[in-house]
Amino acid sequence: MDLTLDGDVVRAGGRARERFYDSRGYGRARNGDLDLAPVEAAHLLYRGDVEAVDGMAFRELLGSSAVSMVDFLVYKDLRDRGFYLTPAREDWVEDPDGVDFVVYPRGQGPWDDEVAYRVRVVGERDDVPASSLGDCVLAVVDEESEITYLETATREVGGTSDASVTAVDGELLTERVVCWDPPSDVYEQAFYGQRLDDDAVQLSLVEAAYLARTGDLRVEGGPDAVAERGREVEGERFDRRLTVYAALRDAGVVPKTGFKFGADFRTYADVESVENLGHSELLVRALPAAHRFEPRDLALDVRLAHGVRKTMVFALVGDGVEWVEVQRLTP
Amino acid sequence: MDLTLDGDVVRAGGRARERFYDSRGYGRARNGDLDLAPVEAAHLLYRGDVEAVDGMAFRELLGSSAVSMVDFLVYKDLRDRGFYLTPAREDWVEDPDGVDFVVYPRGQGPWDDEVAYRVRVVGERDDVPASSLGDCVLAVVDEESEITYLETATREVGGTSDASVTAVDGELLTERVVCWDPPSDVYEQAFYGQRLDDDAVQLSLVEAAYLARTGDLRVEGGPDAVAERGREVEGERFDRRLTVYAALRDAGVVPKTGFKFGADFRTYADVESVENLGHSELLVRALPAAHRFEPRDLALDVRLAHGVRKTMVFALVGDGVEWVEVQRLTP
Repeated sequence: MDLTLDGDVVRAGGRARERFYDSRGYGRARNGDLDLAPVEAAHLLYRGDVEAVDGMAFRELLGSSAVSMVDFLVYKDLRDRGFYLTPAREDWVEDPDGVDFVVYPRGQGPWDDEVAYRVRVVGERDDVPASSLGDCVLAVVDEESEITYLETATREVGGTSDASVTAVDGELLTERVVCWDPPSDVYEQAFYGQRLDDDAVQLSLVEAAYLARTGDLRVEGGPDAVAERGREVEGERFDRRLTVYAALRDAGVVPKTGFKFGADFRTYADVESVENLGHSELLVRALPAAHRFEPRDLALDVRLAHGVRKTMVFALVGDGVEWVEVQRLTP
Repeated sequence: MDLTLDGDVVRAGGRARERFYDSRGYGRARNGDLDLAPVEAAHLLYRGDVEAVDGMAFRELLGSSAVSMVDFLVYKDLRDRGFYLTPAREDWVEDPDGVDFVVYPRGQGPWDDEVAYRVRVVGERDDVPASSLGDCVLAVVDEESEITYLETATREVGGTSDASVTAVDGELLTERVVCWDPPSDVYEQAFYGQRLDDDAVQLSLVEAAYLARTGDLRVEGGPDAVAERGREVEGERFDRRLTVYAALRDAGVVPKTGFKFGADFRTYADVESVENLGHSELLVRALPAAHRFEPRDLALDVRLAHGVRKTMVFALVGDGVEWVEVQRLTP
């Protein structure tokens, strides 16, 4: 069987089309013949289904610049898991932008219309722009060639928690605001702050800045004094976190510190009272929209969130806030 | 009862000494009288045991520059947990360097010789030099005034795994080295690399650089070619990781990638064969000795390690490698 490398396409004839495309979903049919991406040809070589491509055996093709090793590893892994998939090239699949493979549901192939996953291949040392996430599965190939699949999706956040409280006085003390003898709803219902004792509640700077802005907290110097203190101790990160905090509160979600989980916030969607607090659902990390992830940091966040039965959400702060959820996936 | 603020010491008389030092371990006895640190005086005010210090009530003292809010929160928390503790001042405790409080075992106090914890108070926004860890408990006060205790200790690492293998040939392919038809001990016994299939093992660059250096891997260009590729894709981090990898292997421990846990390595102390592989014990992050931690990153690593029943170890690379273990502590 004759397979020839023509630029970045491997050309094969009608018999190859019948054998590889029609029955096993490799490549793209073209006028009765077959076009294969080099990574697909490498897989056929690897399996022993063909013997050579342009005279090259598997090792040679893999060592050539025609095939990326990480692409091959992901292609092979998905085939091993029982999927048919197509390299995401212009005219080969719909909307190839930003992904490397289009994966079909098990039992389906390029002849069908359904897509199970849109997969982007990433080496563990490649950085990943946050703005490029949201409609793809990252297949991260680590240095030992293990693959971690991370499903990314844009989402909304929302809940039924009530952010409004009886107005309260507070005193700015270094990195917190203390409310002496606050009305009980501040902590008990709306879950702002943390009790110092029965007679006092401490607010974080971000909580205090939000409440001062809504007019529910009276503090010397007003909202500006609190935000200024926040910037002094946190820099520009403070404003970013305040934007995300406010977006969550405004959406009916209670954000509390995510420090113990290494995140900015953990969130509670439906707080009626602190006494009957449920499990927090999300871990939120606030990032500038232009942020670029190191895959290892992504893996760390997602793994931790999974371990504590929460969903990792990145809040990308640009003109507004975009929410991107990332979860581990086993295809 | 008269308490007066004298510089950074609160002076009190003999009755206060009997009541607070002799029976409850506050302060330091001085010629039958009592010296208190302001944080201790604040706690006595908070509890209502004294009414004023130099005319100041609790709120006023806490709002003054004499008492740090985070120190107070940790002092109070440890008292609430049933401990007596002494502010780490020169002449008040032995070896006060690098810590804020010396905490005695429950039931003991400053009259006894035993120390349970040496505690350093850290705000979540303060950075922590890696070199300052090893003989202290960090009490990290987060923005909502919750306290996370992290116990740090220097340690050794060691195991019984054998790093030597039959010499093998390898081919450098972008970010990995592939060994075609390797001797079985490379993967099966010594646990280098990852199977591509029955006939090939892929080594990570750090594994390959180590094996090339020991002479067990023959690769075009030798160890330098592998290390150079490593630096191309990872920068100076590669050499740091190689140093840590080699130190672990030389100590009889098998390091494998820690990518899925967001770390540099996970380690196996006693590998006889991959078939009977036990649980990996440590997660290792390689850092320059001059590294400064953000407490949030520390919390993330330690939390994750705990969740997967491993111990978090930081490998600080300077002239040699120093190993610092960090674990969550509930005092």
